[in-house]
Amino acid sequence: MSAEPRLLANAIRALSMDAVQAANSGHPGMPMGMADAATILFTEYLKYDPADPKWHDRDRFVLSAGHGSMLIYSLLHLTGYAHPTMEEIAHFRKLGSPCAGHPENFMLEGVEATTGPLGQGFAMAVGMAIAERHLNAVFGDDLVDHHTWAIAGDGCLMEGINHEAVGLAGHLKLGRLNVLWDNNKITIDGSTALSTSEDIPARYRASGWHVVSCDGHDFDSIRRALDEAVSDPRPSLIDCQTIIGWGAPNKQGTSATHGAALGNDEVAAARKQLVWDSEPFDIPEPIIRGWREAGGRGAQVRAEWNARLAANPQRGEFERRMEGRLPDGTARSDYLDGLAANPQKVATRKASEMALEAINADLPETIGGSADLTGSNNTKTKSQTPLTADDYSGRYLYYGIREFGMAAAMNGMALHGGVIPYGGTFLVFSDYCRPAIRLSALQNARVIYVMTHDSIGLGEDGPTHQPVEHVMSLRMIPNLDVYRPADAVETAECWELALARADGPSLLCLTRQNLPQLRTERSANLSARGAYRLRPAKADRRVVILATGSEVETAVATADKLEAQGIGADIVSMPSWSAFDAQDEAYRRDLLPDGVLVVSIEAGTTFGWERYTGLKGLRIGLDRFGASAPAEDLFERFGFTADKIAPQIVAALNSGDK
Amino acid sequence: MSAEPRLLANAIRALSMDAVQAANSGHPGMPMGMADAATILFTEYLKYDPADPKWHDRDRFVLSAGHGSMLIYSLLHLTGYAHPTMEEIAHFRKLGSPCAGHPENFMLEGVEATTGPLGQGFAMAVGMAIAERHLNAVFGDDLVDHHTWAIAGDGCLMEGINHEAVGLAGHLKLGRLNVLWDNNKITIDGSTALSTSEDIPARYRASGWHVVSCDGHDFDSIRRALDEAVSDPRPSLIDCQTIIGWGAPNKQGTSATHGAALGNDEVAAARKQLVWDSEPFDIPEPIIRGWREAGGRGAQVRAEWNARLAANPQRGEFERRMEGRLPDGTARSDYLDGLAANPQKVATRKASEMALEAINADLPETIGGSADLTGSNNTKTKSQTPLTADDYSGRYLYYGIREFGMAAAMNGMALHGGVIPYGGTFLVFSDYCRPAIRLSALQNARVIYVMTHDSIGLGEDGPTHQPVEHVMSLRMIPNLDVYRPADAVETAECWELALARADGPSLLCLTRQNLPQLRTERSANLSARGAYRLRPAKADRRVVILATGSEVETAVATADKLEAQGIGADIVSMPSWSAFDAQDEAYRRDLLPDGVLVVSIEAGTTFGWERYTGLKGLRIGLDRFGASAPAEDLFERFGFTADKIAPQIVAALNSGDK
Repeated sequence: MSAEPRLLANAIRALSMDAVQAANSGHPGMPMGMADAATILFTEYLKYDPADPKWHDRDRFVLSAGHGSMLIYSLLHLTGYAHPTMEEIAHFRKLGSPCAGHPENFMLEGVEATTGPLGQGFAMAVGMAIAERHLNAVFGDDLVDHHTWAIAGDGCLMEGINHEAVGLAGHLKLGRLNVLWDNNKITIDGSTALSTSEDIPARYRASGWHVVSCDGHDFDSIRRALDEAVSDPRPSLIDCQTIIGWGAPNKQGTSATHGAALGNDEVAAARKQLVWDSEPFDIPEPIIRGWREAGGRGAQVRAEWNARLAANPQRGEFERRMEGRLPDGTARSDYLDGLAANPQKVATRKASEMALEAINADLPETIGGSADLTGSNNTKTKSQTPLTADDYSGRYLYYGIREFGMAAAMNGMALHGGVIPYGGTFLVFSDYCRPAIRLSALQNARVIYVMTHDSIGLGEDGPTHQPVEHVMSLRMIPNLDVYRPADAVETAECWELALARADGPSLLCLTRQNLPQLRTERSANLSARGAYRLRPAKADRRVVILATGSEVETAVATADKLEAQGIGADIVSMPSWSAFDAQDEAYRRDLLPDGVLVVSIEAGTTFGWERYTGLKGLRIGLDRFGASAPAEDLFERFGFTADKIAPQIVAALNSGDK
Repeated sequence: MSAEPRLLANAIRALSMDAVQAANSGHPGMPMGMADAATILFTEYLKYDPADPKWHDRDRFVLSAGHGSMLIYSLLHLTGYAHPTMEEIAHFRKLGSPCAGHPENFMLEGVEATTGPLGQGFAMAVGMAIAERHLNAVFGDDLVDHHTWAIAGDGCLMEGINHEAVGLAGHLKLGRLNVLWDNNKITIDGSTALSTSEDIPARYRASGWHVVSCDGHDFDSIRRALDEAVSDPRPSLIDCQTIIGWGAPNKQGTSATHGAALGNDEVAAARKQLVWDSEPFDIPEPIIRGWREAGGRGAQVRAEWNARLAANPQRGEFERRMEGRLPDGTARSDYLDGLAANPQKVATRKASEMALEAINADLPETIGGSADLTGSNNTKTKSQTPLTADDYSGRYLYYGIREFGMAAAMNGMALHGGVIPYGGTFLVFSDYCRPAIRLSALQNARVIYVMTHDSIGLGEDGPTHQPVEHVMSLRMIPNLDVYRPADAVETAECWELALARADGPSLLCLTRQNLPQLRTERSANLSARGAYRLRPAKADRRVVILATGSEVETAVATADKLEAQGIGADIVSMPSWSAFDAQDEAYRRDLLPDGVLVVSIEAGTTFGWERYTGLKGLRIGLDRFGASAPAEDLFERFGFTADKIAPQIVAALNSGDK
């Protein structure tokens, strides 16, 4: 190392305080406090090569304390990544700069995960470490042999999801996972003593972690701790005892440095304290040279790895998986042929399991799981063995009663690459996962959520377990594809679409109760257009009945009643709003023409259906909480029967509004 | 005690297995496993009187493992509550029976909280224990001196929220809180060893809890543990080592007893094993007598408490608070007069703080707080001191970085009664609280959520922190009142409405950025109708511009531009959808008449606005994730300026669709 670590670290401090000052917003305290530990990590331990940010066997680094984003921007720039440039850093938090307020994986290579919502970065790192061990078990040390690192703050550790992530990592003995805890004892509100009295190391040890402490401003102490972490077979928490805002003489150690610019006076005082004479955004040449040398450490390692890859007989399959390309389906195609020949009356959760039998046979990269509802979510196929600490090659994860932790881990697995994670819980508990589902969408992560028991059709468990607003509220999350298939065929189609989408998450809403198979012709994937005419009107068309999932069966029965009265009714099945909205206007108008009464049926909130029914259409739904009773009684009680719906349609037609 | 505890406990077992068998659905394993411990708790420790289920100084008992609902239904019936009757128990999980699949506080007195979504019951118990200590500090031992008890299972303990609840309770030294952990080592998927390796007692001790273990089927062991828990000054976890489904000879100790009826054969075998000869739903007279004697233990204690209450000079105030009646406002009224006289250009989060200054002066029952964003949420008023382990009389809680734990604790506080909790975080993190917000609504709990930074107006923190779908997705939760006020006056009005609503939760969406005060006339509470005409068109009305929150200012500027072109535009401010939807049709039509172009402006998803604009109206919103930049740049970039909106309206008018 040609430059003293302190000088290298001070470059991070200078960039961080200057960028925050220029933006007049941001979080200087964390990067200034963790600069020393991060310098040791990035100059002596972390395996990476700025020349190939996507090198498959790089170490993964997650800045879970995402508000300290200037730390990672500084590190990427200093070690020699193409981005961010100094210009981009100088435009921190401005429109167009990839240096966003919080690190965004879709803006910068080297940012492995989008962080900021506290606790989730840590939990994503757990998922990355799972993916690494799994791929290591499949492809061997020659191709997959890296660590996952994270920096987390007190906030990440106080969040509930931390408990889930720590429990999962400890149980799976993810020794390649090392988390540096920025233990500065400061939160936004002030001292951590305001709100917590926890013995954090004791809690981690209770979950099977190794904990080691260091002085976060003493380089030898940091090295000793990192060495110990790397050599310990358990996941490690590295307790870095730091001073927030280290270097700012009047504000360091206080929450004043946490989330606001230091101010010109304090920046000047810090420059004096750090003996840092350069102008803002100017790094002295010897220091930049020291950083670039450190950034170059990985080139040789990567060259050796490339040589091993070139010689490896599994190279093609390894690259296919890491690049996220699907193999051609064969079992899946056979499965759909079989459905056409032998229609199945099953719950769509069961249809999902049947589709998965074919999918898992074709796609060795899927890793399934459930948050302790395996038999209810039907997420495990026969051939899947558990992924455990003793056998990482397994393809099924018992996530435990950790819905949020599961979702975040799946994000990490998808971001790592090489695997396609899917996981289940009850749809009502999508609320528990929701912050991670949003991050799947924001991060363009191919995660597939299997959400079963998707309406009052859940029955006796009652309103705490019955989704009402969930399907609709999930449809609003940008970039999330929500599917509610109507039968076994649509379920297989929706699975196909979800898997084919490499750049974002999908969520399947599936029934507990059995549904008839409504399609028996082998056809193209009709779900791909979001909605399609399942059956055209027989009599003159006066109504279009639009339904999803289990209510398509009800729509058919309702249409039958109307046709018996000479009222023609199209039946439109709509498994996906977002796919339908993406169709051209001609297609949309053909399905939902002007001048015809449009009726929506969905056993959930009616909120939002005006988009398709207009204000004069009818919306059959449930705008209250459900109740505990057998499903049939609930559908009857809440009006989801043809006997109750058909007269409303007749009345609407007779009212002359249309 | 006239009957052996085992015989009493077996009555719970018999009722539980018979009710589940009759419903052919439910969870017999938990009540059968915990019957012994629950019998000791309800016959020897718990303070309650079935003759007055709402007795203010009763112990609170929460069945956090709500799937074991037959346990609480059995206990309430056996100890002599008016409900559930045996008939109601026999109709467990049927339409109309108050014995729902999971316990519902709105169906049965004696059920203190609606549970089932795992982890939340425990966290609500923490809130109840906070309320108890606070009211004790205010009203003294004579009036408030009770314990909070909970039964939690492995699932409750594995959920992330458990970490938050445990941390909060330990920090606040809630010694009156005792949680019985049904340590049966079984989850739905099988053994807990499938998914966890945690040393749970060590984790609890790390957070300042007392932990004591007992054999959950040995009555003396249970008593020793409960005695130790009651006497220890820390919150206690009572590790009850149990066998799930105890008494079912072939299935006990396995996940087969967890979530399904035992089956007739196994029920018959269990009857033999338990030497229980009675018919289903028939309890032998000596056993019912033993239970009723136990249920009568509290009558004398309550009589003595009533005598103390009658003599207490604070009786009136105590009863007012416990019954949830608000006092008349004076400071609040003065505050509104002041706003009319001196309009304020402030962020609505700041306006909320200003309103709270008046509210907290008038209402001694409010307890504020924030999940570590006090200065950003503006939730703390000057006179509020912290509620701490050293001083429970404080009225401000530093919840720490525990959004979900905060929300669930607030539910518990509201359900306890005597306090009105409000708490803040960023609106985007409403996702972290969402499962508890839903339970506020389902439970009819007066909890007020203060959600700030309610749009891209948050600015530089970027898309991870910018709500897009949140306001709309919260509007869909049944029974939740969502407000998005436009200025300081509306903010005060929305606060007034939220406080006045004794039977449900409210959620305020507030800006980070400053907004002009749009109303300067002292008037009735216009927000009460959900929407109102802020300014009528000057020229002939051709447009109604409908907006909420910060976009009302934009609506005014847009209307100005239109009027300058001779296009009349009404401006309607709509702080609450649910209140507007509850108005009569004449009022709604008057605001949003047919034949006029309706334009909505809200800096969030356009999803759902068709309800008011119809399909031919215009919806100005944001249907993608935001970006990191100063707020003004984002509003410009995403089209929320009069310059960008007015031409779209003109174009729509000229298109001739209307």
